Amino acid sequence: MNFTDPLNQDTICAISTPQGMGGIAVVRVSGDRAIDIVSTRWQGKPLDQCDSHTVHLGHIIDSQGNLLDEVVLTLYRNPRSFTGEDVIEIACHGSTWIQQQLVSTLIDAGCRAAAGGEFTRRAFANGRLDLSQAEAVADVIASQSQAAHRVAMNQMRGKFSRELSDLRDRLIHFVSLMELELDFSEEDVTFADRSSVIALAGEIHAVISRLADSYQAGNVIKNGLPVAIVGQTNAGKSTLLNALLHDDRALVSDIQGTTRDVIEDTITVGGTMFRFIDTAGLRETDDTVESMGIERSWTSLERARIVLWVIDATAGESEIADLASKILPRCEGKQLIAVINKADLLPSAQSLPSSQDSGQCAAQLGCPVKLQHLLPQGTRVIAISALQEDDVERLQQLILDAAALPAVGEDAVIVTNTRHYEALVRAKEALARAIDALHMGISGDLVSQDIRETLHYLGEITGEITTQDVLGEIFSHFCIGK
Amino acid sequence: MNFTDPLNQDTICAISTPQGMGGIAVVRVSGDRAIDIVSTRWQGKPLDQCDSHTVHLGHIIDSQGNLLDEVVLTLYRNPRSFTGEDVIEIACHGSTWIQQQLVSTLIDAGCRAAAGGEFTRRAFANGRLDLSQAEAVADVIASQSQAAHRVAMNQMRGKFSRELSDLRDRLIHFVSLMELELDFSEEDVTFADRSSVIALAGEIHAVISRLADSYQAGNVIKNGLPVAIVGQTNAGKSTLLNALLHDDRALVSDIQGTTRDVIEDTITVGGTMFRFIDTAGLRETDDTVESMGIERSWTSLERARIVLWVIDATAGESEIADLASKILPRCEGKQLIAVINKADLLPSAQSLPSSQDSGQCAAQLGCPVKLQHLLPQGTRVIAISALQEDDVERLQQLILDAAALPAVGEDAVIVTNTRHYEALVRAKEALARAIDALHMGISGDLVSQDIRETLHYLGEITGEITTQDVLGEIFSHFCIGK
Repeated sequence: MNFTDPLNQDTICAISTPQGMGGIAVVRVSGDRAIDIVSTRWQGKPLDQCDSHTVHLGHIIDSQGNLLDEVVLTLYRNPRSFTGEDVIEIACHGSTWIQQQLVSTLIDAGCRAAAGGEFTRRAFANGRLDLSQAEAVADVIASQSQAAHRVAMNQMRGKFSRELSDLRDRLIHFVSLMELELDFSEEDVTFADRSSVIALAGEIHAVISRLADSYQAGNVIKNGLPVAIVGQTNAGKSTLLNALLHDDRALVSDIQGTTRDVIEDTITVGGTMFRFIDTAGLRETDDTVESMGIERSWTSLERARIVLWVIDATAGESEIADLASKILPRCEGKQLIAVINKADLLPSAQSLPSSQDSGQCAAQLGCPVKLQHLLPQGTRVIAISALQEDDVERLQQLILDAAALPAVGEDAVIVTNTRHYEALVRAKEALARAIDALHMGISGDLVSQDIRETLHYLGEITGEITTQDVLGEIFSHFCIGK
Repeated sequence: MNFTDPLNQDTICAISTPQGMGGIAVVRVSGDRAIDIVSTRWQGKPLDQCDSHTVHLGHIIDSQGNLLDEVVLTLYRNPRSFTGEDVIEIACHGSTWIQQQLVSTLIDAGCRAAAGGEFTRRAFANGRLDLSQAEAVADVIASQSQAAHRVAMNQMRGKFSRELSDLRDRLIHFVSLMELELDFSEEDVTFADRSSVIALAGEIHAVISRLADSYQAGNVIKNGLPVAIVGQTNAGKSTLLNALLHDDRALVSDIQGTTRDVIEDTITVGGTMFRFIDTAGLRETDDTVESMGIERSWTSLERARIVLWVIDATAGESEIADLASKILPRCEGKQLIAVINKADLLPSAQSLPSSQDSGQCAAQLGCPVKLQHLLPQGTRVIAISALQEDDVERLQQLILDAAALPAVGEDAVIVTNTRHYEALVRAKEALARAIDALHMGISGDLVSQDIRETLHYLGEITGEITTQDVLGEIFSHFCIGK
């Protein structure tokens, strides 16, 4: 779908590679005048004589004709480019100074600095991607785990769009039958058999519901599953977190040239991201239970799906019971994992199995009797001591079990985008009204209106129906240069 | 020059773009097996059928055949590539996860992770660049100012190498004449007229000296000219520094996608970088003169080429004199700029000219009489008040004047590399010995030996003469991926 975008006349440019210094950096230029503008700063084979998808070594000069850099230039001719326009990518030496100067001199020569996501927005405007695919580009770039990557990649490649497009086709067929009846309403003709129409609507409703329901898993995949670690200071909470984080970091840090600084408290286990929530304040429970800080910790706990309660086995029974009375009521509906630390320091310490239901806990592993009655039935229990590497793996497995996430298949279509989820919920509601109306034998024009509304909401997802405001909002979250 | 490098059999890969997340990132692969290895992870046009310098859209898969990313692949065939080997550049989506996975899967498939600078090292080993050009690649990437960029770019493009090569040719001609005489020594033939030989050697000595002497300016251009700001806390030192830094930052921050975080206290004025030295401790001079902290500040001051002494004009005469007695002796051989602050608060404040020699100071600008006798003749003086934008510009101009740097022309050959400087100094010394010997009429074989030594040192710069240790040291300072 091609529509007029007032910004679309400009030729835009931006640094597309990550910020900072590196071996090389890439500046991207897109627009009708890309070849003309870059030619004024280019010394090399004349660009108007170059074919699409060719690579050329040459020099970029500034407006005074001074050499700026030796570069490799790649030309993509309209429409065979990411944006569908003429695109030039200039790979320069990755000095921040050269990157700045290169963009500056292109702006001098007539480019405009691209806004965030503007290249992708043009790809959408020129029909190279639909809107949900364009949004997936940002998700692909932001993805930090295999699951998030796979879901975003499937969406970018159009699997979600095709599923929606199929739904729309079926709904359009449906509504056209309904509207045909209306045209012939004088004659009381029925083109669509009511019961098969209701069955079809129910089927479509089920698909939309499935997509909407996938959002809960999708949100976890995209943003990470929130895990709170609670417990007293000396229980070993930070050792545990550090070990979990460190273990994960070690896995990635052998590949140089990447950074994970932005996700300090996030780890990826079995392809899924877990987001650890800071509940540091909890440790001072006994001193200042009512303080604001502690309240924030409890609020954090509320956001968690999984709670790791680190228990110092050597602590007094009443102390543990006191903490239990505060923690356990707040864990309802969450997955609780009791991490018993320092159990080896107990006089009765025995060899501890890796993971136990609380029912077996006391009997089998010398789990302190004082805990036996505190933990709700079904609580996962793990005993750790000096935190061997083995402990970390066992705990990760327990967290994975507690998360009970569905596997994300190669072809999985999972909704991760709140905008899509909301549109699906509205589409589902409109379709439900249509189904109710069909059941009640309400006249075709009302049914048709509800189905048109369903189509509208589905169209919002893929961008058949949209506004500049919505587009502005969507692409403002993209990084510059994409 | 092509020599055997034991590491050179591997096919290497690395992320070549800056660290972190961005629109796109580029992974570079180089080596004999580049096409074979990448082909096992590539879905697209068969790479063995692709011409050099062509661009292809396709998919990268992991070892299990799962889609990793849609990428743009550029193929450069041996020898028409940066390294002189087969090179493949894969432009992927700039997610850190994808970047990691892409490198991982290429390593799985048979690549080795490249060491820092290894691509450039191969370019050198394969005769694509000489050593000084290869070193300039790192300087180009690190350059933060126009002057540093221009010098590095000239070196990378071979201007320094050509100058050295010219010197070597002349020396080789020279030494061959000398050695011819030795072969015919029985016959007492003189092929080289002594006086013209001495003139030639002197000329070459002058060129080598010029190059060696350029190092002082080159070092400033590359590493920044050290400027210390001293003065008491309430004198306005930090306001001044912030204003200088802010003014510079504003110049660069309008171009998004670049970062200057690593050079917190560096500003570029008129294309030259100034490195401001933290002398915070100085403000407590009166209290703890002997403390370690203050000692460090004085040490920092020693490294400065320019000293900005910020003087509170409202301070008492004895206070200023006391500080002067500590600061001024340490400023010998440095450029001192007296920055008089708060002069407008003095009863006798008048309109202040922009910059004054201290001789005119008291008379013309109401500079406190108490200062007149303190400042050495020739001290630059500037009066600032609330630090208007105008003040910053005037002060920058004064700093530039004090720096008295030579302009770096388009073709300037300036030595910025300590290794080159040391080799030039040794070459100069050896050549001076040869000239002395010639003057003293010492026999040709000794002269010839000194000239051979001069040739050796010049050859070290361009890499004709080198060792694996030297190469390892040089390239270890490069970033990964270059």
